[in-house]
Amino acid sequence: MKYPNSLIQLIRELSRLPGVGPKSAQRLAFHLFSSSDQDVKNLSDAILEAKKILKLCPVCYNITDTDLCAVCSDPTRDQDIICVVEEPGDVIAIERSGEFEGLYHVLHGALSPMNGVGPEQIKIAGLLERIQNREGAPVEVILATSTTVEGEATSMFVQRSLEPLGVNVSRIAYGLPVGGALEYADEVTLGRAIAGRRQVTKI
Amino acid sequence: MKYPNSLIQLIRELSRLPGVGPKSAQRLAFHLFSSSDQDVKNLSDAILEAKKILKLCPVCYNITDTDLCAVCSDPTRDQDIICVVEEPGDVIAIERSGEFEGLYHVLHGALSPMNGVGPEQIKIAGLLERIQNREGAPVEVILATSTTVEGEATSMFVQRSLEPLGVNVSRIAYGLPVGGALEYADEVTLGRAIAGRRQVTKI
Repeated sequence: MKYPNSLIQLIRELSRLPGVGPKSAQRLAFHLFSSSDQDVKNLSDAILEAKKILKLCPVCYNITDTDLCAVCSDPTRDQDIICVVEEPGDVIAIERSGEFEGLYHVLHGALSPMNGVGPEQIKIAGLLERIQNREGAPVEVILATSTTVEGEATSMFVQRSLEPLGVNVSRIAYGLPVGGALEYADEVTLGRAIAGRRQVTKI
Repeated sequence: MKYPNSLIQLIRELSRLPGVGPKSAQRLAFHLFSSSDQDVKNLSDAILEAKKILKLCPVCYNITDTDLCAVCSDPTRDQDIICVVEEPGDVIAIERSGEFEGLYHVLHGALSPMNGVGPEQIKIAGLLERIQNREGAPVEVILATSTTVEGEATSMFVQRSLEPLGVNVSRIAYGLPVGGALEYADEVTLGRAIAGRRQVTKI
């Protein structure tokens, strides 16, 4: 049996999305086929509209639809702390925690020589320039890249690049996730959690 | 922080797809943002194009872009066997097995009174009509609905509806999946596999 071309084409395009295999793509295609014309149009419009309107903030490289992103243009944010993350999704995750009141810098990737990602391929130069051109008190930079090999390498590289600029650099804490059972924690995490212990009683 | 409207809209539309939660929708949205204009346009076009061109085959209710679907319009297929399945994806799965040379009938769902799906909501009437209007030898109908509660109920209902029409009705075999270890099979499947055993030596 030969499948309709437009169905094959749709499944092929859908399966190019991250995390969507051939089976999920097929399922999505059948779902779209049985959806209403309006729903399908809404999805297609949302895709094109987002692609047309969204761009990168020229200061922090976060995703925005205005000249400066919502964080950079907010005067109530602490201008003296910059949190460095790998991806725009990380900004959303940190904002959701409600624990951070400063600014961001999105690198759009992590160093990975194996995949041909060097310092030029991610937005490290933009971060250094941003800090060099800054007037007033020195900033604190929080390195909130992932705790993967690539994230660690990126964190280390940014830390060294920032050394000549005389800024305070910190790295987010390692430890057990909240709600995590000690028994199931891997030994490296557990070792880091013990090394990073905090005193809870005053003597 | 307020997210750009077009980003929120895109994430909302993507998370309406089956199997796509809020986190995956966010990931897909960021992926689309970093894809090339052409790739995004291709996806959007494929969605609209498929929705515009694809329709149901008037005979078997499979998805098609021609008047009759590829199976129904193929004279080499065995016209005397009709395999009844729940969804168009099931046709693709069976075709991939290469074990079936007959025709299909797609019900577009399974009976599920809990969810308000009765015999009128799926294409059972079309099947009965198709068999009644047929001339020549009686057909064999293979019930290949899922082995879920809904699939079983649908199979039973179709079987009873076909009784007055004097056709041979069969149900696909229950048993262990190929490559399955006996140890891990659930007891119901194992019971059905033993009940459905086939003689392998001739006496």
